[in-house]
This record gives sequence, C-alpha cells and structure tokens, in this order.
Amino acid sequence: MLQSQLFTKTIKEFPKDEISKSTQFLIRAGFVDKLAAGVYTLLPLGLKVLDKIEKIITEEMEGISGQKISMPALIPKENWKKTGRWDNFDALFKLKGKGKVEYGLGATHEEVVVPLIKKYVSSYKDLPLAVFQIQNKFRDELRVKSGLLRTREFLMKDLYSFHASEKDLEIYYEKVKEAYFRIFKKLKIDDQTYLTLASGGTFSKNSHEFQTITSVGEDLIYICSECKVAINKEIIKGKAGCWQCGKILSQKDKSIEVANIFKLKEKYTKPFDLRFTDKDGQKRLVLMGCYGIGLSRLMGAVVEVLHDQNGIIWPESIAPFEFHLIPIGENQKVKKVAESIYKTLQKVKQEVIYDDRTGKTPGEKFADCDLIGIPYRIVVSEKTLEKDCVEVKKRNESKTKLIEVGKISQLYVK
Amino acid sequence: MLQSQLFTKTIKEFPKDEISKSTQFLIRAGFVDKLAAGVYTLLPLGLKVLDKIEKIITEEMEGISGQKISMPALIPKENWKKTGRWDNFDALFKLKGKGKVEYGLGATHEEVVVPLIKKYVSSYKDLPLAVFQIQNKFRDELRVKSGLLRTREFLMKDLYSFHASEKDLEIYYEKVKEAYFRIFKKLKIDDQTYLTLASGGTFSKNSHEFQTITSVGEDLIYICSECKVAINKEIIKGKAGCWQCGKILSQKDKSIEVANIFKLKEKYTKPFDLRFTDKDGQKRLVLMGCYGIGLSRLMGAVVEVLHDQNGIIWPESIAPFEFHLIPIGENQKVKKVAESIYKTLQKVKQEVIYDDRTGKTPGEKFADCDLIGIPYRIVVSEKTLEKDCVEVKKRNESKTKLIEVGKISQLYVK
Repeated sequence: MLQSQLFTKTIKEFPKDEISKSTQFLIRAGFVDKLAAGVYTLLPLGLKVLDKIEKIITEEMEGISGQKISMPALIPKENWKKTGRWDNFDALFKLKGKGKVEYGLGATHEEVVVPLIKKYVSSYKDLPLAVFQIQNKFRDELRVKSGLLRTREFLMKDLYSFHASEKDLEIYYEKVKEAYFRIFKKLKIDDQTYLTLASGGTFSKNSHEFQTITSVGEDLIYICSECKVAINKEIIKGKAGCWQCGKILSQKDKSIEVANIFKLKEKYTKPFDLRFTDKDGQKRLVLMGCYGIGLSRLMGAVVEVLHDQNGIIWPESIAPFEFHLIPIGENQKVKKVAESIYKTLQKVKQEVIYDDRTGKTPGEKFADCDLIGIPYRIVVSEKTLEKDCVEVKKRNESKTKLIEVGKISQLYVK
Repeated sequence: MLQSQLFTKTIKEFPKDEISKSTQFLIRAGFVDKLAAGVYTLLPLGLKVLDKIEKIITEEMEGISGQKISMPALIPKENWKKTGRWDNFDALFKLKGKGKVEYGLGATHEEVVVPLIKKYVSSYKDLPLAVFQIQNKFRDELRVKSGLLRTREFLMKDLYSFHASEKDLEIYYEKVKEAYFRIFKKLKIDDQTYLTLASGGTFSKNSHEFQTITSVGEDLIYICSECKVAINKEIIKGKAGCWQCGKILSQKDKSIEVANIFKLKEKYTKPFDLRFTDKDGQKRLVLMGCYGIGLSRLMGAVVEVLHDQNGIIWPESIAPFEFHLIPIGENQKVKKVAESIYKTLQKVKQEVIYDDRTGKTPGEKFADCDLIGIPYRIVVSEKTLEKDCVEVKKRNESKTKLIEVGKISQLYVK
C-alpha cells in the first residue's frame, strides 16, 4: 500500500496515560487508538496484524478438529442464572433492554455453547467434538492500566471441547497445549512463555495458564528452568515447588497471561443437563474443556517482547507488511526504480508498504520505519543506484546488504 | 469437509417461532441457531457464508479507497451526549459498568469515527478519506419477528467518508451506490433490489435505501419499473411519484432494507468540531457521508430471494461449498471413487462437502443436499460407474449430466 494513502500518521510523543511500552508503541505507530479506559479501536495496521493472528489461530484450531462458529454477545439472563454466574461472575456487564429483557454481555460463552451443543448431541457417536470462535468479549475490569494487556472489550479465541470420558478429555487437553505452543512459536514468543499452574477462577479449581514474561505483567510466576514450566504465585502456600519435578523454585518474574486452558468436566454440562447415551445405553453427563487465547492481548504481548528503543520488531508471521520500501530524495530515477520495485513485489504476492510521502527527510522516514517495525527495509537512493542496487536491512539487524534491482523479486519470497 | 464431522444436523421440522422462510431454512439446514428473540449464533455453514459475504464487501470497499478498521462496541456516554443521541436514539442499549462508567452499545459509529478522524485530519491535503469496518452492531429493537431480517445483534459493514467539499461528497456517494449494486449482483439479488428514496431517520432528512423485494419485508415501496428505482411509503404524502421521471407509481411491493446511504454533511462533524484548513487558510467543517450494509440480514435476504420448496439455492459466490459429493449405497468401489473425487477436487482448490455419513438412505441424503443448497451435486453410484461416470446436477436445474470420473478436475474450476 502507499504510505501517503494511510490515514493514520505516526505520533512523536509517548502517550502519557499508557504505562505499557507495547501500547505506547502501538499507539504512536498507528496500530491502535484509545477510545476510553480499556477500550481501543483497531486502526488499519493493527487490524492487519490481528487478521494474521486470527488466521494462525484458526488454522491451529481446525488442525485439532475445531469447528468455527460465532456466538452472540447478548446472552439472556436466564442462561447466566442457570450456572450461577449472573450473581457471582464479578466482571459481567449487565444490561436491560425494552420489554425488560435482561442480558449479560458475553464475557465467556459456556452459557451459550452448552445449550447449543445439547441440540445436536445425543449419543456417544456424536462425541468428541470441539467448536471455537474468534469474537469480541466484554469484561467489566475494575483496573485497566496496562493498555492492550487488560481491556474491557477484546478479541478472544475460545474453544470448547466435549467428551464421553475423562481420558478422552485428557488427550484433547494435551493436544490443545501443543497447538498453543505452536502458535506462540509462530509469534516468536515461545521462549518467553511458560505453561503455568494457576487457580481456575470461576471456571475450575486449577487451570493451566500460558504466561509470557514481561516487566508490565500483572502476574508473578515462579519458573522451573529445567522443566520449562512455572507456577503462579496466587496458588503458592509456603515455598514454591515445581509441579513437575518437585524442585523448590526461586527464579521469579512478572508475566502476562496470554492464554489459559481448563478442564471444566461436568461444571457447565450439569446445569444444562447435557447428557449422551453411552455404549451400554446409560445416560451420562458430557465432559467438557475450555481453552482461551486473547488475540488483542497477544498483539500487545508480542510487542512487549519484540521491540527496541526505536519501535516495534514484528515477527514475519504477523507483520502488517513484509517490506517497507523507502526512496530517498526527489531524484526522478530513484522514484521510478522504487515504483517498479513496488509493482514487482506486489506481482510476486509480497506485502509491501511504499513510503511515497513527499516533504519528509530521510531521517523522518527511517524513524517511522523503525517505529512501525516491518521486517525488511528496502532503501532506494542515488547512491545505491550507482551500483544498480538497493539496500536491504532486517529490522532486528544493523547490517545492510546491497541487492541488485533486477533480483529483487527472487529474494525473501516466503 | 466430511459431512459426518459437521456437528450440526439438519432438522426436519419447521421452527414454529420463525415466520420468515429464509430463517426457517437457515435454521433447519444448520446455518444459524436462535439463542433468544433477535439473537442468533452463526454455525459452521453460516459462518462460511458470512465470511464470503465479508470478503466480497471488503474488496468492493477497498476498491473505492476504504481503509478497514475495527471500532469497539463499548462507546462512552459522553460521546453519545455530544451528538444528542444518548437521549434520542431509541434503539440504543445502555449499560453501566463499575465506577459508574456508562456506555451506549455500538448501534452505529459516528460517535467514535469522528473523534478518531479528528486526530489525523487537519488540512485539505488529508481529504478525502474513507474508513469502514465489518463488526457487530447492537440495537434494542422492540419487535424482532422476521428472523435474521431484524435482529438485536447483527454483523454490519459501515463505511464513513470525509470530504472538503459537497461536490466531492456527491462524487463519492455515487461511487458507493455503484459498489453496492456490484455487491448485490455478485449475490444474485440485484434484479430484486431497488434504489429507494426514504427518510433518513436519526441520520439525515432523506436517504437512499437499497430495498430487496420479499413477501416478509417490513417496508412497502412503490416501484418505477422504467427507472428501476423506488420510493418508500413512509415518505409519500398523497400520490406516489417517481423521484427520477416524475411518473405516478402504482406498482407496490413488500421489501426489506438491505443497505442504506446517507449524506450526513456537517451533522456529526459539527458537534465534535472536526475541521480542516482549506487551500485559502480558512478553517471549515469536514463534510461526511455514511453507508451501511447488514451482512447477516443480507444472508437472510439472499435466501428469501433464492430458495424453492426444498431448501436454499446458494449463488456460487457465497455458497459454503461449491460441490456436494454424494455416494449412493455401501458398494466399496463407489466409496473408493467418491473418496478419490473428494481428494481431486480439494487438490484443485475446490470447496467440497463429502456426504460420508453411513446409515442414511439416498432419499435422506438428497433431501439434506437440497435443503443445504450447494450449487453442484455430484452423485456416485454403481449405475453411474457402469459408464465410468458420475452424475452432476445444478441445484437450480432439474437436468443431470454424466461426467467421466477422470475429467472431474477439469470441470467447474472457477
């Protein structure tokens, strides 16, 4: 895309009301805009990143037989009443419509998915099954100081699985763990992300969280570097012990919960009486698991991990563009070559943002480029053209490389 | 996909609480599920259709320079107060969070987009610009009797354009009209859809609606068959006259509003004081247009127009699959050929649903196939294999055609 056409502009000043580096950079670079405390608009660049995260997660969920659906946010009070969460889910937004219809805004969707699945499941032959959605959640969080890392409205993937036996639930639960680590690996935060034993909140007694180390994290975890797992301080009584090898842990770090998984078992199938007929003709309760990932929070967490003092360093998998093409100066030949490279890269299906803005100094262009954080920068200047070349630099490296103009289409094609 | 893996099943009974044929079929065939009055879940087949509609609309909006963003649903009371709609937008859902923060749930987004654009626009050089989103809207509709055609939560595309002059707004307004008719053409409802002069509601004095003729429509329009335009009864005083040729109109029909466009001009830029500096240095108010299409309603409207007594007839552009592959009987060779066709079609990137269910009669399989409404049905049976062929039938035609098994990959490739 042409950078001159992008309606957002980079902002020099750090936003004073944001304490997280990630949200500061994402606002300054034009990925998100803050509407109110804990409520953000996704701007064109931010939506591109979110769409790519959504695609990666969708593929992984479909890879473990998840069927994609989309449930509404307006959930009738009676559904919440049935599970007791109308009265004891603290973060539930409640509203009343005309004709006195009351709703709880979708903060999680067990209250919708269980009665839905009940319409289609009757026999053990219908199990196991898993459905997921990627949709906006609403939670009335009291404190929303960490920017995109804790918001009142956020994009979330929630997967729900249904099983005939505890063993089958166990097997699926492990599959989801593996899928989650594949996702974090694609997003280049797997090294900083720990499978963490934690409390289950309103969902279950214990749960596993996926915690990413970051200085603005709201959680504190004790890490076992040998097992590569952690334990959340919230459930530690006395000394922190590794739940895999038993070792006493001393290494602790601030972290942010990017995902969680729960074995709900009968907790939500019981109130809705979701049963199946077993092989021996007996009616039994379906067992259930639920598995969440916050997509907008994940975008924040990636930037928390991957940035330097100049801006964001996007991993190629979710960068809004692959190349940032920058012509230097007003020379006509430079402009012509840059335009031809722009067309060439588009022809070979590479995503490129072309800095065609006039009246910007090279310094301003480079600063914007580093702030936005596209993986490859291509500079065209009179100097590089003397050698019939362009200069290519990776965002996270300082060394540059001269590439012949004619060879540009063969390089870096994924 | 394997039909045996789809968690939804077709339903024989017509849902008693739905009066619109489209919603009846969409529920019976497993595209949507009703959670509450005016609130629906999109099931796997329905989400596939909506995703395709979203893709078509996104391409058309980007084709007229629209930049895609995503604004939140939690909109602070103060924003609605500024335009007066906190008190006079009847369908606004209001809610109160902790700390007494009040929100109006996004029913439309002028109150978010105008202050957003104000952050980035200062000069005539920044104009024109257009942003759009495809996102869930919430409206507290009193009566929700027409299924997907009027709901309290629905997927909507809203485009907002910003201009320095009325002439520029006019030009863009015409471009949107054309883009809309291209969308309706792709969805095969352009013949039934009329550009209709109507009242502007809370948005403006007059507006243009796009009304699609259907017997469950909530509107009544007078049609000029010569000009191919209509006028909404709501603004007719005395005799109905065509607003293009002036002719007195007698042909009237029930219809459903699938889209609308408004010249808002200064209506919402004024309360937020969104101004730009003109070429002569003067500060002037930005002029604005807004343009909506309801995606879930559009899905309903398409089915209203395109169905027969047996079920839905999807246009190829938005069908969840291109082919419905049906083996008849339990013969091993039939099964083997069907499986190889399934793989072949997937290899050439065709979308196919393979009815691999056991224990279903041919009659049951054909009935489900007609109900779901995939454009092409491929039947493999002992009889067709005698000629080394399969039988291909279009959903909206009765004639069948024998195609050699070996030639299946060359046919119907888009």
